[in-house]
Amino acid sequence: MKIEAVDAFYLRMPDVKCIGDGSQDALLIRVSAGGFTGWGECEASPLPTIAALIAPISHSACQPVLNSVLGATIDGPASIRAVHRAVHTNCFDLLQADHALSGIDIALWDLLGKVEGAPVWSFFSSVNMPKTAYASQLFGATPEDTFAAAKEVAKLGYLAAKFGWGPIGTGSVEDDRHQVAAAREGLGLDRTLLVDTGCIFDHDLEMAAQRIGILEEFQVGWWEEPFATGALAEYSTLSERTPVSLAAGEGAHNADQAKHLIDYGGVTTIQIDTGRVGGITAARQVAEYARSKNVHYVNHTFTSNLALSASLQPYPEQIGLAEVPTQTSELARAIGGDTWSIDAEGAVAAPAEPGLGIIPSLEALQSYRQAIEIRWNGKPIWTS
Amino acid sequence: MKIEAVDAFYLRMPDVKCIGDGSQDALLIRVSAGGFTGWGECEASPLPTIAALIAPISHSACQPVLNSVLGATIDGPASIRAVHRAVHTNCFDLLQADHALSGIDIALWDLLGKVEGAPVWSFFSSVNMPKTAYASQLFGATPEDTFAAAKEVAKLGYLAAKFGWGPIGTGSVEDDRHQVAAAREGLGLDRTLLVDTGCIFDHDLEMAAQRIGILEEFQVGWWEEPFATGALAEYSTLSERTPVSLAAGEGAHNADQAKHLIDYGGVTTIQIDTGRVGGITAARQVAEYARSKNVHYVNHTFTSNLALSASLQPYPEQIGLAEVPTQTSELARAIGGDTWSIDAEGAVAAPAEPGLGIIPSLEALQSYRQAIEIRWNGKPIWTS
Repeated sequence: MKIEAVDAFYLRMPDVKCIGDGSQDALLIRVSAGGFTGWGECEASPLPTIAALIAPISHSACQPVLNSVLGATIDGPASIRAVHRAVHTNCFDLLQADHALSGIDIALWDLLGKVEGAPVWSFFSSVNMPKTAYASQLFGATPEDTFAAAKEVAKLGYLAAKFGWGPIGTGSVEDDRHQVAAAREGLGLDRTLLVDTGCIFDHDLEMAAQRIGILEEFQVGWWEEPFATGALAEYSTLSERTPVSLAAGEGAHNADQAKHLIDYGGVTTIQIDTGRVGGITAARQVAEYARSKNVHYVNHTFTSNLALSASLQPYPEQIGLAEVPTQTSELARAIGGDTWSIDAEGAVAAPAEPGLGIIPSLEALQSYRQAIEIRWNGKPIWTS
Repeated sequence: MKIEAVDAFYLRMPDVKCIGDGSQDALLIRVSAGGFTGWGECEASPLPTIAALIAPISHSACQPVLNSVLGATIDGPASIRAVHRAVHTNCFDLLQADHALSGIDIALWDLLGKVEGAPVWSFFSSVNMPKTAYASQLFGATPEDTFAAAKEVAKLGYLAAKFGWGPIGTGSVEDDRHQVAAAREGLGLDRTLLVDTGCIFDHDLEMAAQRIGILEEFQVGWWEEPFATGALAEYSTLSERTPVSLAAGEGAHNADQAKHLIDYGGVTTIQIDTGRVGGITAARQVAEYARSKNVHYVNHTFTSNLALSASLQPYPEQIGLAEVPTQTSELARAIGGDTWSIDAEGAVAAPAEPGLGIIPSLEALQSYRQAIEIRWNGKPIWTS
């Protein structure tokens, strides 16, 4: 069957705040073929991503993304990989294309799963191992807020929690110490504490290194994104200066960049957002590569359960941790439902249902829909 | 003085062909501050780049590019670097931002140069070394076409020429041999021949390795882009299998990615397009890094003389080669004038005039201008 339509739905909270909460808007992709539909979510700025779908051609390596998608045949995993490859080849000078491709690729796997009555993970593995869920949280404005949040997720049954962004790294080392101490105190010593400094130190090795003692003192399971995604030399040097596992990868917009963090950055936990890396196709490549290098693959997700399901599909045979966002917006919950349930062992797994197992309802999303119209020389080339 | 306005002009040839000619459209950026204007050119897909300028905020690390630019103070090189850093920090989840930043950063350096009555290169070096110009050409459809084109550039006085794209790598090894042989024959043995395979082998080491003999036989000065920008392991392995210098970097959209090609890819010629890498600020970082590693820095340019001037500014103290596009579109010539003149030694240098030394005329560009209107929930957020 051939891809007949690709639709994009821009959804947004009424009041988007300038904070680290990535669930305040969303771009959902719906792909239609042969009477089936598949859904995907781009973890991306919606307007430039829509523009990438339909941008007038600039030259042979800078074509609109949809040129390589509409009309393509989908009849199995290899055909999805062919679409993925075509977008890379035809759009390699269109930077935003990788983020647009991510949503499309996810939607194509969802569609294929529905056609074949099989969950996406089953195309990669016969087993679907549960992973220990970690509650993904922002640091509170004060250590007291962080303590309360940590207490709360411990009460909810999570065996692990991550705190990130907010004030961390923006003040003194002592300020950071109070925050991490509060998170550890709230969680207790028997739960895994993870810390995410959200690239705050950019390329500044010494600023990051000053925090090593804090992370060691409070037995932090991993230290996520001390640096910018491309600061490979700084990652590598820091990894030699602390036994704490370094984690990164959410900024990778293709499989190569994730591999570089493993090969040259000394990262021992690779975190992939299927909504950015080029979808499930690219994420699966990274998961296989990570396994071959004894590196821990983990999903990155801070949006809806649709995105969470997509991010859990690429590593079904692996155990370990999985990120579960627990502070997302009302919009994220409208897309994919309430916080993903953890089982009695505090674990989660990708759904057993066909495709991604999460089907958004456009009716429920009506009030969040944003109308975008793009006119080129007076003619509408996008209306949604 | 504060940045009062950033305007973007989308220009396009009436008939854009699906070929490797990147000069068929353009996005010019004009920055205004304190009664001065500066111009820059993004080497980017225009529509998504415009969208990146004004995209509604998604979260704190996914803000519209202009949020970090409008109102910023410009009073010297450090202030431009501060704008550059702000865009990186506030837009790191907006993939297209780097391409938008590129044009803005170039325009800011042009503006600063005009304010201070100094060419941009003079902020980096007291000397402005001429470089041997190489005529940048597409391979012809047949070896005969390539031979004729090589003959022609030799006659024009170029001491070096590069042939790329077109049929190279798309057929057999023998087909490629005929093409490279024709280029060498047309140029003669006393001129430098460079070959650009335009990422055609992606990550396929063996397909690329089959061409080693051809490049050695015809004494090719460098082999440009055998692989995708991120295929660092493949670059590195290939570099160990041939004495031919490997060249790459035009796909880098930040300084880190260019450094990776040097540090991990075994690339000995790093080619930077200021219109993609994040402007002159990022390109200068790469030029300094390349120098410290004894790697040959070269501009990448295949569009207008405005882009060529911007790409020549970051490495004034270095000698070597410079890319001069000789087959660009009528549009590129309307932006920045006819093919850049080479001197009696076949060399070029960045202009001695203030800023970039190239001032586009909107009047001359009128017929190429594209009207773009973007409406968000019925309200226009971009009109040009």
